[in-house]
Amino acid sequence: MSDDTGPVRPTLEELDATTCLELVASTPVGRLGFIQDNAPVVLPVNHLVDDGDVVFRTAVGSKLDVAQRESGPRVVYEVDSYDPADHSGWSVLVKGHLEPVLNRVEAARLDRRRHRVWVDDPERQRWVRVRATEITGRRIVTPG
Amino acid sequence: MSDDTGPVRPTLEELDATTCLELVASTPVGRLGFIQDNAPVVLPVNHLVDDGDVVFRTAVGSKLDVAQRESGPRVVYEVDSYDPADHSGWSVLVKGHLEPVLNRVEAARLDRRRHRVWVDDPERQRWVRVRATEITGRRIVTPG
Repeated sequence: MSDDTGPVRPTLEELDATTCLELVASTPVGRLGFIQDNAPVVLPVNHLVDDGDVVFRTAVGSKLDVAQRESGPRVVYEVDSYDPADHSGWSVLVKGHLEPVLNRVEAARLDRRRHRVWVDDPERQRWVRVRATEITGRRIVTPG
Repeated sequence: MSDDTGPVRPTLEELDATTCLELVASTPVGRLGFIQDNAPVVLPVNHLVDDGDVVFRTAVGSKLDVAQRESGPRVVYEVDSYDPADHSGWSVLVKGHLEPVLNRVEAARLDRRRHRVWVDDPERQRWVRVRATEITGRRIVTPG
């Protein structure tokens, strides 16, 4: 039943985890959220999806090098896409822990995919992985 | 002097606060980072820039309704734009505190601008403001 008392409002539709990861893989940039000195930090990241996880390279000694610690920090990774023309869009949130990719074979395999890394420098040598504990997403649906 | 021993690498250029706010104002969606239950949270937000601040509407009783508290929570607001075609892009980070817009005249003025809010519902009734303490940004520059 349509509501003809006002304009049709867009609604939000939940996305399953498989769809979420496909959307993340189709998008080169997301944002990593973490806590540093009791303050929230959000940084844009140029990611890959590898075996169902978000992975990216970070500089050794950088803020994200905390991932060296045995128990990696809690992080959230956000990816979205919006089209201003028709107000369509989606967003995905991956909650998890950051952990370093220490296996050299695994790191070398990821290196071969790094052509998608835009701003690179010799110091960005460490691959880190967001080990997901929860993946959620939603899409804006405009009733047609 | 150009380095002809390898491909030209893009570098990062710092942006001043005025340029940062112009870029944020030109972009409808950003991401709010905050801390909840000792975990980082990042949520996409449909914002406006008002008098040099980022403002947006949120649901009363929602996660962000913590802004009711006298001393608003520390937040970070991130906005970016990337062009996969040429790997150009920029990102802006606004650090600050969240505070509610309690003044009715001010809220009514913002309501008149809310045509830019995409997913709206009657419960999203509270305007909140990111009172900035620091605005930084950077742009990817590819040497021409």
